[in-house]
Amino acid sequence: MPYVTVKMLEGRTEEQKRALVEKVTAAVSETVNAPVENVVVFIEDMPKNHYGVAGKLFSDK
Amino acid sequence: MPYVTVKMLEGRTEEQKRALVEKVTAAVSETVNAPVENVVVFIEDMPKNHYGVAGKLFSDK
Amino acid sequence: MPYVTVKMLEGRTEEQKRALVEKVTAAVSETVNAPVENVVVFIEDMPKNHYGVAGKLFSDK
Amino acid sequence: MPYVTVKMLEGRTEEQKRALVEKVTAAVSETVNAPVENVVVFIEDMPKNHYGVAGKLFSDK
Amino acid sequence: MPYVTVKMLEGRTEEQKRALVEKVTAAVSETVNAPVENVVVFIEDMPKNHYGVAGKLFSDK
Amino acid sequence: MPYVTVKMLEGRTEEQKRALVEKVTAAVSETVNAPVENVVVFIEDMPKNHYGVAGKLFSDK
Repeated sequence: MPYVTVKMLEGRTEEQKRALVEKVTAAVSETVNAPVENVVVFIEDMPKNHYGVAGKLFSDK
Repeated sequence: MPYVTVKMLEGRTEEQKRALVEKVTAAVSETVNAPVENVVVFIEDMPKNHYGVAGKLFSDK
Repeated sequence: MPYVTVKMLEGRTEEQKRALVEKVTAAVSETVNAPVENVVVFIEDMPKNHYGVAGKLFSDK
Repeated sequence: MPYVTVKMLEGRTEEQKRALVEKVTAAVSETVNAPVENVVVFIEDMPKNHYGVAGKLFSDK
Repeated sequence: MPYVTVKMLEGRTEEQKRALVEKVTAAVSETVNAPVENVVVFIEDMPKNHYGVAGKLFSDK
Repeated sequence: MPYVTVKMLEGRTEEQKRALVEKVTAAVSETVNAPVENVVVFIEDMPKNHYGVAGKLFSDK
């Protein structure tokens, strides 16, 4: 605890995901006073054809 | 805002997903009085072996 | 199936939620060819102090 | 109803997923007094590089 | 890991929730070969006016 | 995009939530190269009797 889910378009590199988990964990730990060991991060990749804004699929933009 | 997630069995065509995003966005915008530009839709595909009803995987039915 | 989740700021009326469920169900049923009876809708209300964009809580805007 | 989501690292066999759906459905049905027919289970697989604990990706451990 | 979310209509007693967590944890642990200590369960209560099937809110049925 | 959900036990102050949104947004923006304006954060509070680890509700510990 806390449990953090980051949903974003696919295509980020391993290095970006590694940095994301490290920095988000630090930000959560510091601001809500939770031990770093307890912070869990889930990454969810979205394909461009599974994400729509304003009625249009991102893959059509 | 609003954020809409549609979870369904995989296998729909691009044309169906395109229509889904368009029509669901319109339905949400019209009924809760939100601008179309603010409506976000996420599609989540489920494989048949990741979905169970009444204790049985869909892939076993 | 499908399962639809609509997450939005709290404050909509019962009448708006009723219309939302009716119209979204119709839009999903029609576009992905699922019987109306199978469409499930979950509504999730967000308090303004649990929603942030661009680093700022909505309750502070 | 109820709707159960089980998120876990990828790699389980079909036989494990089949047993998971059967046993979890029984446990839910029995404890909250819901008919087995109404219990829905979603399985979500996580790749090891999409799951982090204590600031480190599982794929780096 | 695994992380289990159980979404159901509000109104269950503390005793039912306690039994739910205990039995679901055992079912998951046994079937996917995860230590009981690692199984996490989240319960999500739905109000009747936030849940719709077949285009109708449950609170209207 | 990205969309970040932080699920944690209830009881944090407004000041902690404000800082959480600010710092998590910065961490995400910096590591995955997304404009701060596009980062959305949802906070989800869990009551202690809706969260279980190792088969026991947190409210019973």
